[in-house]
Amino acid sequence: MRIFSDRLVESLQKTGSPCVVGLDPRIDRMPAFIKSGRAEKGARAIICDFHELVLDAVDGLVSAVKPQLAFFERYGTAGIQAFEDTVQAAKQRGLLVIADGKRNDVDSTAEAYAAAYLGKEAFDVDALTVTPYLGRDSMVPFVDACRDHGKGIFVVLKTSNPGSGDYQDQKLESTGRPLYENVAHTIRQFGEGLMGESGYSSAGAVVGATFPEQARRLRALLPNAIILVTGYGAQGATPEGAAACFNPDGLGAIVNSSRGITYSFGSEDVTKAAFLSAVRENTLRMRDEIMRKVSQSALASHPASR
Amino acid sequence: MRIFSDRLVESLQKTGSPCVVGLDPRIDRMPAFIKSGRAEKGARAIICDFHELVLDAVDGLVSAVKPQLAFFERYGTAGIQAFEDTVQAAKQRGLLVIADGKRNDVDSTAEAYAAAYLGKEAFDVDALTVTPYLGRDSMVPFVDACRDHGKGIFVVLKTSNPGSGDYQDQKLESTGRPLYENVAHTIRQFGEGLMGESGYSSAGAVVGATFPEQARRLRALLPNAIILVTGYGAQGATPEGAAACFNPDGLGAIVNSSRGITYSFGSEDVTKAAFLSAVRENTLRMRDEIMRKVSQSALASHPASR
Repeated sequence: MRIFSDRLVESLQKTGSPCVVGLDPRIDRMPAFIKSGRAEKGARAIICDFHELVLDAVDGLVSAVKPQLAFFERYGTAGIQAFEDTVQAAKQRGLLVIADGKRNDVDSTAEAYAAAYLGKEAFDVDALTVTPYLGRDSMVPFVDACRDHGKGIFVVLKTSNPGSGDYQDQKLESTGRPLYENVAHTIRQFGEGLMGESGYSSAGAVVGATFPEQARRLRALLPNAIILVTGYGAQGATPEGAAACFNPDGLGAIVNSSRGITYSFGSEDVTKAAFLSAVRENTLRMRDEIMRKVSQSALASHPASR
Repeated sequence: MRIFSDRLVESLQKTGSPCVVGLDPRIDRMPAFIKSGRAEKGARAIICDFHELVLDAVDGLVSAVKPQLAFFERYGTAGIQAFEDTVQAAKQRGLLVIADGKRNDVDSTAEAYAAAYLGKEAFDVDALTVTPYLGRDSMVPFVDACRDHGKGIFVVLKTSNPGSGDYQDQKLESTGRPLYENVAHTIRQFGEGLMGESGYSSAGAVVGATFPEQARRLRALLPNAIILVTGYGAQGATPEGAAACFNPDGLGAIVNSSRGITYSFGSEDVTKAAFLSAVRENTLRMRDEIMRKVSQSALASHPASR
């Protein structure tokens, strides 16, 4: 059983792209051709058809997809069925699936979430995002599930929203450093037990691309963690902010974009061909923007190699 | 449209019980008679049958139920269908439903979670538990949904697990007070816009019953919030710890027990009648233990009325 981080790094090296496409089903924003046809077509079928096309369009350009559970849950049971279908469709194409659920709880409840997403019996995705507020012990069942099943977690560390500073940035009396650095310390400890042959661990971190200075600091604090960079193509995130999350080896980060890839196709009367083309071009543009900045950063940090 | 807090207070006054029964489906722990009968009986039917019996047994003794989403998600789509069925069964009996999902995210994703649980189109429960780490703005969509639909939130404030101190108790340089008091301040602000005629707001707080001193402090900081007390009957929580979360009027808190009510029935070969009786007695005992301590606390805080 190969662990999550090694599987992800292998896929990153194969595709040469750090892009992750976020799958946030919003039926009201989907092209008209997806929704028309059968009058009886329900939410499940609409969402699945949309995601099949997105997966076709990004073929070879991404290593992973990040379905956002909130947007599936928004459609009740039909949405959860669509989530299961979407996970299967992505896996069949060889893509890794990172379920963005920001789950957590204490004790046996955390074990239930870990079993639901990282175990083999229910949703069986490759990785799950997890929130840290409940403390170190609340995350241990997820770490255990990663070890048992070759899965990964991304702990929410520093988010991209304006209010992310309200609690995350508060300096602690005990350390004189912001709260999120305490969380980073815990992620680093978890990572020691989940280290892959690639040198990267399966205990990753979610970091918003809107705060490059903090991203650089977190990159240094977590040299072996894979950072899931969020907020790209929205919320003011830039290629510079994303590039700050990479290691000099050009690895160590994956960058998610959701609406910037899947809902930037112009009019809802777009044709199928034009939709596929727009999704592919959005992904290519994002990949090239980021990799250009990552290369520049790597050169800047190794001036002798110029 | 009556707001959540008023509906809950009215129900508390009618039943005279602050007990909330936690619905944590764990098929492996359910009585044998629930699981036998039809060979084709799937997870959905087993969970629903179990919850119907629990709801029958606690009739008149609780105002609300707290289904824990983790344990439903553990069974995949079948579990989510069972969640929808359970919500309907509880509503038909006039019980309020607090979905324990500890959800949160930023921006339009938080809006999607709020729509999923507090809107009318998907799960349509009465209240949802929400985590605070992402900051004040991440919780605003939930507050807006409470206002629009007469619903409630319980923000996770201070949990009952040993590691709850790792981040929640950290003293901040800016205030000299623990992080959870900053979160309490935000809950208080949200409550001002969600105040009911009862004097209680629909912005509540989740507080573990294991830390009576902190509970008293939070009770004072949040005089108008309804506290959802967790960890009762497990994790070392006591009637004293729960009683510390009440106001002198005997209101202001509801106390959840899950396994202490639903899975404390002795052998798995229990009969249906003995199961119903055990669940009802567990609930009665819990109600009486807590109300005795609440009365003692009220007398202690108003010695002149002795």
